[in-house]
Amino acid sequence: MTDLAIRFDDIAAAAARLHGVAHRTPVRTSRTADAATGAQLFFKCENFQRMGAFKFRGAYNALAQFSPAQRAAGVIAFSSGNHAQAIALSARLLGMPSVIVMPHDSPAAKLAATRGYQQGQAGSEVVLFDRYTEDREAIGQRIAAERGMTLIPPYDHPHVMAGQGTAALELLQDTADGGPLDLLLVCVGGGGLIAGCAVAAKHLQTGITVLGVEPEAGNDTQQSLARGEIVHIATPQTIADGAQTQHSGQLTFPVIQRHVPRILTVGDAQLVRTMRFFAERMKMVVEPTGCLGAAAALEGAEGLPDLRGKRVGIVVSGGNVDLQRYGGWLAG
Amino acid sequence: MTDLAIRFDDIAAAAARLHGVAHRTPVRTSRTADAATGAQLFFKCENFQRMGAFKFRGAYNALAQFSPAQRAAGVIAFSSGNHAQAIALSARLLGMPSVIVMPHDSPAAKLAATRGYQQGQAGSEVVLFDRYTEDREAIGQRIAAERGMTLIPPYDHPHVMAGQGTAALELLQDTADGGPLDLLLVCVGGGGLIAGCAVAAKHLQTGITVLGVEPEAGNDTQQSLARGEIVHIATPQTIADGAQTQHSGQLTFPVIQRHVPRILTVGDAQLVRTMRFFAERMKMVVEPTGCLGAAAALEGAEGLPDLRGKRVGIVVSGGNVDLQRYGGWLAG
Repeated sequence: MTDLAIRFDDIAAAAARLHGVAHRTPVRTSRTADAATGAQLFFKCENFQRMGAFKFRGAYNALAQFSPAQRAAGVIAFSSGNHAQAIALSARLLGMPSVIVMPHDSPAAKLAATRGYQQGQAGSEVVLFDRYTEDREAIGQRIAAERGMTLIPPYDHPHVMAGQGTAALELLQDTADGGPLDLLLVCVGGGGLIAGCAVAAKHLQTGITVLGVEPEAGNDTQQSLARGEIVHIATPQTIADGAQTQHSGQLTFPVIQRHVPRILTVGDAQLVRTMRFFAERMKMVVEPTGCLGAAAALEGAEGLPDLRGKRVGIVVSGGNVDLQRYGGWLAG
Repeated sequence: MTDLAIRFDDIAAAAARLHGVAHRTPVRTSRTADAATGAQLFFKCENFQRMGAFKFRGAYNALAQFSPAQRAAGVIAFSSGNHAQAIALSARLLGMPSVIVMPHDSPAAKLAATRGYQQGQAGSEVVLFDRYTEDREAIGQRIAAERGMTLIPPYDHPHVMAGQGTAALELLQDTADGGPLDLLLVCVGGGGLIAGCAVAAKHLQTGITVLGVEPEAGNDTQQSLARGEIVHIATPQTIADGAQTQHSGQLTFPVIQRHVPRILTVGDAQLVRTMRFFAERMKMVVEPTGCLGAAAALEGAEGLPDLRGKRVGIVVSGGNVDLQRYGGWLAG
């Protein structure tokens, strides 16, 4: 039995670091969803997390452990998504510079949000690159070397994974009064969230089953579990942009292999219907990636256990979505 | 000093009736909104209330006080909006029949939702009428007489008003740790919500200012306060369908006169921008009427006090909105 990158103690320590900084997001329920599934569903609402997604947990947990020298030089990240905003906000809260390397054609709203989180922190900036002619890794490495900055990747890092696990820790704590959960459904991109959540959940409730949910078009982790090794795929075409990863991480995959018996998949049409369900019945905005777990429960998926009579936790990972596209999905 | 229709004790009694039946909805905050206004804003999220709006509070409080004979015969209401759903759900929870008189061209989603809340309750039905050729009052009175049913109006009823006041009661209780509120902003249709909320707020915090907010096109209560008597207007053209009332009530207006120094107004464009703010920054769906109070604070309104350094409560009244129209508003 090889050692995994994180243990439960790392998640408990992350929870202590995040206390009073991250939101303890609500666990919400829906009579409609329960009636439709015959189960009791508990939605952990990370769309209400700071900067709108669970990514804040991992980013802050990683940056909070920087040495004084690392803090002074700051952090660098490549991302056009929630990880960018999570790093920018965490760095400012901890008083360190951040450089976020983003494609020059990123949506204006994302650029503005990232720069907004950096505001007032000296040495922070967004560095743009041309996706078609420049190599972002080379740009990032040059800046990191020149400025002595520490790179924090979006998922394949033990401190990031441990931070994400605090979402499941809180969910299990906040539902414990009614008894243990039978099942936990977690969306899967690079695997940082499900790795942390699986370690937390299996430690607290050994009988729980943790299943991942990927978009049909981006089922690299499903393939990897079947093959027993990390499978690389082309960038998948799916509206679940947070799960458009090409492969699991070297650190996240062994945790998934140990604790997650299988990965389910759902299609984009099911994600749109689930977005509508969240808006219409629960009055909340959830991004496509954040709908993966709920879509499996509400719309069904091959390999989903019989939910009737079960207590099911679902991590709703985030709510950051371009309003124009979102409006179009709702209007149909 | 004439007696008003409700006193604080009525609201406290309503709170006891609603305990464990209505949701104690969350009070949410937004760093973005606070930074934009220089105030501390506290949003009372009645969009997360049962059936999606504060109307459940008043309806349930009224029906819970029916005599055994009234319960046996049941309740009748005219409404195509949130009041219909509130009465239908409350009646089923209390085990009594409900008849809801709705226009035959009501949106299918509203008919389905109302019938859904009636499901399983014998004697309950939706009665449709033709808005152009039939008189709904006559239809309702005939059914009420034939079946011995009690009519519950949407706002001009002391038990309805007292129920709505529990929203402000909870908001003031849940923000009391940080000190009293300086200002409370409440949307105004027929005045049931603001009447209940004003009585609760002025009793608990005598220094608080309670202001109403109406759509520009439907400022009947603003006109009534200026004139000193209830002004009737034509059905206003505004996207705030919950505030498309033509006049305040005989019971609600005297409370507003006593406790509400003035009414502010905002336009539909401001409501749309506020809907977008709620979706983008707070990840929640709010119907146009539910945006009235927040729109005044975020977008400004003539007669709005200087908010800087103030603690401001805002009642977000509901989240029931046709997804197609809502999607269009978000997409712009």
